[in-house]
Amino acid sequence: MNRGKLITFEGVDGCGKTTQLRLLERILTTRNTSFVSTREPGGTELGKLIRAALLNVSRHKVEPLSELLLYAADRAQHVQEFVLPNLAAGKIVLSDRFYDATTAYQGYGRGFDLALIQKLNRLATSDLKPDLTLLFDIDVSTGIERIARRGGETANNSDEDKANRLDLEPHEFHERVRQGYLELAKQEPNRFRIIPASGSIEAVRPLVMEALQGIL
Amino acid sequence: MNRGKLITFEGVDGCGKTTQLRLLERILTTRNTSFVSTREPGGTELGKLIRAALLNVSRHKVEPLSELLLYAADRAQHVQEFVLPNLAAGKIVLSDRFYDATTAYQGYGRGFDLALIQKLNRLATSDLKPDLTLLFDIDVSTGIERIARRGGETANNSDEDKANRLDLEPHEFHERVRQGYLELAKQEPNRFRIIPASGSIEAVRPLVMEALQGIL
Repeated sequence: MNRGKLITFEGVDGCGKTTQLRLLERILTTRNTSFVSTREPGGTELGKLIRAALLNVSRHKVEPLSELLLYAADRAQHVQEFVLPNLAAGKIVLSDRFYDATTAYQGYGRGFDLALIQKLNRLATSDLKPDLTLLFDIDVSTGIERIARRGGETANNSDEDKANRLDLEPHEFHERVRQGYLELAKQEPNRFRIIPASGSIEAVRPLVMEALQGIL
Repeated sequence: MNRGKLITFEGVDGCGKTTQLRLLERILTTRNTSFVSTREPGGTELGKLIRAALLNVSRHKVEPLSELLLYAADRAQHVQEFVLPNLAAGKIVLSDRFYDATTAYQGYGRGFDLALIQKLNRLATSDLKPDLTLLFDIDVSTGIERIARRGGETANNSDEDKANRLDLEPHEFHERVRQGYLELAKQEPNRFRIIPASGSIEAVRPLVMEALQGIL
């Protein structure tokens, strides 16, 4: 059996990656493609506990270094328990964020040493790299507006949605994250596809399908 | 104001370190010494969530690498939020386990590369070292018997006490941990005091007070 493929969805908050991932799931289902979808943080049972600890800002403090190590712990569990076995079973694995998010958010965003981040990423993933990374690129203000609108629509949702730690960061933080993602894409042009994501859901969808040609 | 002192309590499960720490607290209270006591994992609000994720074995899997990173995340939070501010305030900080436990359990016990462990320990602690480490040394079988007895006595306690992940490891694992601790003590004889801990609580207590002479 052939090894499956790992496709990761990246971008700043409000870039639409999760919506596009859901649309792709429907298409893969109609095509009878064998796939699983997952996310970081929170792709395993342990990861759900880590995700809750990371994102519920109201109940406790989270030091930046502890945050960085919690993402690494979540990723280590996710890769060993979920991603590698599914790839070994020949499946397409769609992941809503992966290690590039740590480089973009904790490295470029928070200013942690990029060499340290890279070491932790390689440790946590056992050197696994995505076969393809879709970077949904959007103007930071547009992303923040989308998140604000979503907040209104999901007023009955969990605490996590109402007070996500990263959503509370200033505009400049998200701008550094965006530029960090673009820098990563520049460093690995073969792995990354940049998808201009300011348009409507329907406008972005064909761009995703185009980026996936050759891999599906 | 003088910087406080960090005193850590280490040893295999059932060695009696927590009991001796409680006795020392009483003595320091009667002497009006300014101290705080804490533990790893779980010395902060975030750490309590991490502790629960690490020790409740029944609900989810924990990969060894993820475990290692969770201990590091707990420690980073603990050092920044609790230990360093209390030392800066001139207090004696008594900690039930610190980074030597990770070297002994994950390094010597589970077989992780000791250089990797050392890097993670230094990262998580920002290079903070205990002023004194008390190693309660006990025959592994005696320790396991004590834990088994305690399990019976605390049948109404939390899940954590009833099914602690580390308590379920085989005898050989705990033996490697014990030898690892002794090796650490050999490498840093100035920081470590080995306390023979097979005797009764009352027999061990004066040994602790003796080891603390010169620091309190």
